[in-house]
Amino acid sequence: MSRYQKGLRVLTSINGQEGKSILKTLEAISPDMAKFVVEFPYGDIYSRPGLDIKTRELITIASLVTMGFAQKELKAHVRNALNAGCTKDQIKETIIQMCVYAGFPAALNGLMIAQEIFEQKEDSRSAKRKRRR
Amino acid sequence: MSRYQKGLRVLTSINGQEGKSILKTLEAISPDMAKFVVEFPYGDIYSRPGLDIKTRELITIASLVTMGFAQKELKAHVRNALNAGCTKDQIKETIIQMCVYAGFPAALNGLMIAQEIFEQKEDSRSAKRKRRR
Amino acid sequence: MSRYQKGLRVLTSINGQEGKSILKTLEAISPDMAKFVVEFPYGDIYSRPGLDIKTRELITIASLVTMGFAQKELKAHVRNALNAGCTKDQIKETIIQMCVYAGFPAALNGLMIAQEIFEQKEDSRSAKRKRRR
Amino acid sequence: MSRYQKGLRVLTSINGQEGKSILKTLEAISPDMAKFVVEFPYGDIYSRPGLDIKTRELITIASLVTMGFAQKELKAHVRNALNAGCTKDQIKETIIQMCVYAGFPAALNGLMIAQEIFEQKEDSRSAKRKRRR
Amino acid sequence: MSRYQKGLRVLTSINGQEGKSILKTLEAISPDMAKFVVEFPYGDIYSRPGLDIKTRELITIASLVTMGFAQKELKAHVRNALNAGCTKDQIKETIIQMCVYAGFPAALNGLMIAQEIFEQKEDSRSAKRKRRR
Amino acid sequence: MSRYQKGLRVLTSINGQEGKSILKTLEAISPDMAKFVVEFPYGDIYSRPGLDIKTRELITIASLVTMGFAQKELKAHVRNALNAGCTKDQIKETIIQMCVYAGFPAALNGLMIAQEIFEQKEDSRSAKRKRRR
Repeated sequence: MSRYQKGLRVLTSINGQEGKSILKTLEAISPDMAKFVVEFPYGDIYSRPGLDIKTRELITIASLVTMGFAQKELKAHVRNALNAGCTKDQIKETIIQMCVYAGFPAALNGLMIAQEIFEQKEDSRSAKRKRRR
Repeated sequence: MSRYQKGLRVLTSINGQEGKSILKTLEAISPDMAKFVVEFPYGDIYSRPGLDIKTRELITIASLVTMGFAQKELKAHVRNALNAGCTKDQIKETIIQMCVYAGFPAALNGLMIAQEIFEQKEDSRSAKRKRRR
Repeated sequence: MSRYQKGLRVLTSINGQEGKSILKTLEAISPDMAKFVVEFPYGDIYSRPGLDIKTRELITIASLVTMGFAQKELKAHVRNALNAGCTKDQIKETIIQMCVYAGFPAALNGLMIAQEIFEQKEDSRSAKRKRRR
Repeated sequence: MSRYQKGLRVLTSINGQEGKSILKTLEAISPDMAKFVVEFPYGDIYSRPGLDIKTRELITIASLVTMGFAQKELKAHVRNALNAGCTKDQIKETIIQMCVYAGFPAALNGLMIAQEIFEQKEDSRSAKRKRRR
Repeated sequence: MSRYQKGLRVLTSINGQEGKSILKTLEAISPDMAKFVVEFPYGDIYSRPGLDIKTRELITIASLVTMGFAQKELKAHVRNALNAGCTKDQIKETIIQMCVYAGFPAALNGLMIAQEIFEQKEDSRSAKRKRRR
Repeated sequence: MSRYQKGLRVLTSINGQEGKSILKTLEAISPDMAKFVVEFPYGDIYSRPGLDIKTRELITIASLVTMGFAQKELKAHVRNALNAGCTKDQIKETIIQMCVYAGFPAALNGLMIAQEIFEQKEDSRSAKRKRRR
């Protein structure tokens, strides 16, 4: 299996439809960069043994909260973390702990973003439930 | 149990003698700041349920590697992570993953620092073994 | 007086209604984090002697401008600084000086944000004046 | 020629109408800061020999992408870089390379912003062409 | 009085001999950069009215602690702050407050550096006293 | 030619002996990370067309100076830039320009580091010359 195939499998397993749509946008801008994103972070790094995907998503959230500016990526990775099986509380705990290292502004912004994703998930779930009735 | 007592218990359980010596240095500069360090990060945050200490140390390492400048704290938390039961490989995996988010310079510096601590631990262990004979 | 009470007193004295509304939003996401915000930054730090609130707000503005990403917090603290009695010129001087240390992009973004708050205050004041007539 | 005149000449040669309009906004907030922007970055730095304007714009883009939060300035400098004669590919290559140093989130955000400017330019050009017919 | 003269006067008034020696080192590397340092930060910014030098030094310390990597400059500005009449406690309060915004690692590193300068000053003072006897 | 071979060729062409020795150190810590460094930054990115190596080294220097903490990497890339044919003046111009975007502390630290490498090169050259006589 090529690095691209391996990466795409990891990416779609945790990022679902959203991952594919981000990839399409990126392919329109730079096909090479889209390829790099699949091959390197997902094909080379996330597919490594040594840490399970849950822990990988939590350390990524810690890193993105610390950076402060990476709001789009943080949204994507809060979604990924939920898809990978992290609980909302584990995600919130990770972000809260960041107030010690990255400061309160970074942690508070992170919590607001996480909450936004939690509510979107809630909304789309209750929308699905309604449609089913 | 007061926040200070709770914090000191967590701090000494993962930070051992070294934690106490850092605290002493800090107390000489600012007794209030030393109190804050015990009470807030350790008494309020690390003693929370929701994430085990191993995961807490890995997300802290992710944050410190991302910052790039916090080398002293990174050393202390690589030590803490080992004390808390993280394997060297889990620590290295965490740092390697940071090359995706914080870039290669931050991740490479982080790996060098982790290696330094791994070797110190090795040295002090073999020194102990020799003394025992 | 508890740390929470002390913190709430400082927070509401400089942050007024807005402080309380931010707190409510945060309480809905994480009651513990809301408690930490009142107790630690406001109860433990801002209520310390040694620096007056005006200077505390100016150094906070300097820090937030330097970070670059903390726009919401910068808005809140420009408001706080005005409430605490800082003049617009002192706030602008603080931000302008940051171009030396944090660079022009950080300082220019900071100035734009400060101006936004100055104009909001102006608008709400002239709205009040009109209503009074 | 004064530093201000020298700076204004560089600024308008690469920043055109947009540069002047940013300057006006800034003059309304702080005339001194507007003067500093013209005199120091443009009058003192960009007008130096030693690097051509194309290279100066590419290193500025590298710096702004690395910072992560400076999106307005990045937009302005992607425009400047095009005006100075950089190709879209050179700008994209610069941003892509940043994924190695500043990480993927910074580089991906940078690419999205560059694309936005490329499309604006495209739109305004095709609008002009239509009007000419 | 030229910007250079104005800047040099401010620089030497708060930076004394040390300021001049840093300037010499810098002149050997890049005479233009040395000129910019005197003219822009000191000639244009620090010599502005609107904030007294004490407050200017405290907001600079806040900014440098927030950056985390600027240890040499932090040392110089802790010295400057003392020369300008700030007390040790005001400097420490400023740095302690940064743990809220920039996080504990940045604030702790800042405190260690400030302490180093405080002790150097103490040493040079007691050395002078001895010589006088 | 594999990504690794392509990367190693670029790396050794601009990084010479020093590049190989860094790689060896890294291989002892993490053979996988050493492989990633060769394959991704050098094999995938630096070996792309679209920008010449000189420009690639200057934008990397801009990024590393902006980060502030990446001193080891900055040293390596100042060396690389010289090896790739950049003049000292082009390197200094790049770093000086960073005072506008990343601030004076970052730019001044960058200049000091560049000077250190310039002097090492000078020393090793005059040592070689002596040996030849």
